[in-house]
Amino acid sequence: MSIIKDIVITPVAFHDMPLLNSVGVHEPFALRSIIEVITTSTQYGLGESYGDSAHLLRLQKAADKLTGLSVYDTNAIYRICVESLAGDDASTSGGDGMAGMVTTASVADKVFSPFEVACLDIQGKLAGVPVSELLGGRVRDSVQYSAYLFYKWAKHPDQPEDDEYGEALDPAGIVKQARKIIDEYGFKAIKLKGGVFPPAQEVEAVKALHATFPGVPLRLDPNATWTVETSKWVANELQGIVEYLEDPAPEIEGMAAVAKEASQMPLATNMAVVAFSHLPPSIAQNAVQVILSDHHFWGGLRKSQTLAAICAIWGIRLSMHSNSHLGISLAAMTHLASATPNLDYACDTHWPWKRSDEDVVVDGALKWVDGGVVVPTAPGLGVELDRKKLERLHRQYLDCGITKRDDTTYMRKFRPEFSPHIPRW
Amino acid sequence: MSIIKDIVITPVAFHDMPLLNSVGVHEPFALRSIIEVITTSTQYGLGESYGDSAHLLRLQKAADKLTGLSVYDTNAIYRICVESLAGDDASTSGGDGMAGMVTTASVADKVFSPFEVACLDIQGKLAGVPVSELLGGRVRDSVQYSAYLFYKWAKHPDQPEDDEYGEALDPAGIVKQARKIIDEYGFKAIKLKGGVFPPAQEVEAVKALHATFPGVPLRLDPNATWTVETSKWVANELQGIVEYLEDPAPEIEGMAAVAKEASQMPLATNMAVVAFSHLPPSIAQNAVQVILSDHHFWGGLRKSQTLAAICAIWGIRLSMHSNSHLGISLAAMTHLASATPNLDYACDTHWPWKRSDEDVVVDGALKWVDGGVVVPTAPGLGVELDRKKLERLHRQYLDCGITKRDDTTYMRKFRPEFSPHIPRW
Repeated sequence: MSIIKDIVITPVAFHDMPLLNSVGVHEPFALRSIIEVITTSTQYGLGESYGDSAHLLRLQKAADKLTGLSVYDTNAIYRICVESLAGDDASTSGGDGMAGMVTTASVADKVFSPFEVACLDIQGKLAGVPVSELLGGRVRDSVQYSAYLFYKWAKHPDQPEDDEYGEALDPAGIVKQARKIIDEYGFKAIKLKGGVFPPAQEVEAVKALHATFPGVPLRLDPNATWTVETSKWVANELQGIVEYLEDPAPEIEGMAAVAKEASQMPLATNMAVVAFSHLPPSIAQNAVQVILSDHHFWGGLRKSQTLAAICAIWGIRLSMHSNSHLGISLAAMTHLASATPNLDYACDTHWPWKRSDEDVVVDGALKWVDGGVVVPTAPGLGVELDRKKLERLHRQYLDCGITKRDDTTYMRKFRPEFSPHIPRW
Repeated sequence: MSIIKDIVITPVAFHDMPLLNSVGVHEPFALRSIIEVITTSTQYGLGESYGDSAHLLRLQKAADKLTGLSVYDTNAIYRICVESLAGDDASTSGGDGMAGMVTTASVADKVFSPFEVACLDIQGKLAGVPVSELLGGRVRDSVQYSAYLFYKWAKHPDQPEDDEYGEALDPAGIVKQARKIIDEYGFKAIKLKGGVFPPAQEVEAVKALHATFPGVPLRLDPNATWTVETSKWVANELQGIVEYLEDPAPEIEGMAAVAKEASQMPLATNMAVVAFSHLPPSIAQNAVQVILSDHHFWGGLRKSQTLAAICAIWGIRLSMHSNSHLGISLAAMTHLASATPNLDYACDTHWPWKRSDEDVVVDGALKWVDGGVVVPTAPGLGVELDRKKLERLHRQYLDCGITKRDDTTYMRKFRPEFSPHIPRW
């Protein structure tokens, strides 16, 4: 039977490296929530979401009201998620562990997402088909991801030794990092997280990547730290070198202004357009030419398919965004991407920044080949919970003392003068 | 197993009454195609579509290439439908039995639709859940339909006696027809098919309905026979009397011009916006405020859900269009409507115009209560094929000699001077 009997939400923490971005630096641990939806016939399905305390509270509040519903009844599950947010001040922290980089995504969509993914996992198990088939069938057997490069410190300041990636604070360091990641995974596209150094320096790094990896599609993402003027200058510098420029300037209006000034450069976003309500104004202004979807904040897999359909209709190209994540999310992202005909780019993933021995799923289900993940063909998501590993990462969550991602405060421990103010350049 | 072994397409004909519209008069028989998708494990699923010969050929051409695919793999089924149309001159007859009233809907979406519905029927049977659950779960247990009134002759000219509805050529006749249909079905909304008489006469009929059925939502649909000027005049006359005005003027541009002139009157369409490619220009001009969806030409049930989502995002209201149809379509329409939260109006249906003893499904699955159809809860669509009835309607198809709906030619048999030219008034 397909009736929800119980939902278990487990916060977990896993080691993260000192990756730099526009709002600060990644803390030593990244947080996630692991959602198990259990049916009356003890079938279970998995979802993964943000791990900040505000989000955990919202997930729990909704979960408490979902028992007794069918795992097919996502309309009712969504409605209850919306109702459970009544009185919630959603204008405070997004609770999404995105460190203020996505502030206005629909809170209801974020809460609903892991429950929907878990319900699809169960639906797939019940029907004996992978989630990709529930979503319309694979159009590709392997989903390409990009090498997601970060400026980084050699180590967290309280660590005795450099981490396995070491320092990357200049073009040479970035190229070295790219080589290491590409050697290991075989990625065929490269994204550099920018917004850390003055634009000329980041442009130099992208040009160094271009010289080292000729023909490899490149992207630069400064997280809206530039003015329209600066964005225009960078667009001109990187014309023909990057496949798109990601969130150069803030908000739909800023992106629209850049798009108007630099009409040859496709602009991508996962900051200006992060909810369905942003689509009408963005489309009316032709503010972005590429949307980075993310099922964690676009309301799950089927709603992400709606986003994909809208992109196809309006001629907007489609890519995929990532946060620090574990195997359940990677499986869900891979199933979604595999069933999305108009996915035009390699997806983002933070996977290489995670220790390979830290996850919550049983090893072996997710295979990396030539820069892509082979789409699992077992029923559902195709990943199973490893309860020992889950327990270990949950203990780590309890022990690490972090309950809310805050890259800025962590940065200020070491650079008290740091300000996340934008536009910065 | 869920692999397609065979697809059987059976054209059928059922008696129709001499219903008048802007392009002529309904012929004595309406055509449909019945699609059976059969899996290797002899599970079968049902779809229903248009019955014109051009469409039947397209369906068969696609069907021939679909064996061996999974019933879940709708991405591949769609792709093959598109490929099977290569070289097809889609600019000729729409082949959809809509008598030229929808000329530019996506041919691929029309061909794909019945296969998708049949695959969902099978998916539901395999999972043991109704199609409404596959679509996200019922938000209503019964789907309201409207009383669909037509100006009509007392009988087909070659018939000896009046049909059971008799003549309706003036306001009194329309009111009488409304009473009869509402008495039988309990409908709580009324639609009048217009475009038959000069606008003042049709406005008079709507006002007579309003006086007779105070508080009942009304609609008038002249099938784009009016100029912008005339549309504006009617909008003014019927302000506060109809809930929307359906396709007063032709094309997106015509609708946009009316919308601008008569901004208080919601404009609905199933003629100007009938494919996903029409949405961007229509939305950019705010041409319509209500879209009548129809899974037969919007590419099946899931694509109709995409349309519904788009309507919700852009604040367009949603209703549902109908052609002459049988029980498989009614079941599919009902499942879809039941799982669509933002369906704002009673759906259209031609059901009352069909003889109650003519269908292809086993009696009893579709129950009318208080103007609505109770959503079937059996697995899949919840309707089963009655092979004797199918055989009878197929024989009727072979015997009736009609292979293409043509209301205009039939009208001209009796009124040689008739012209379907628009705008007419």
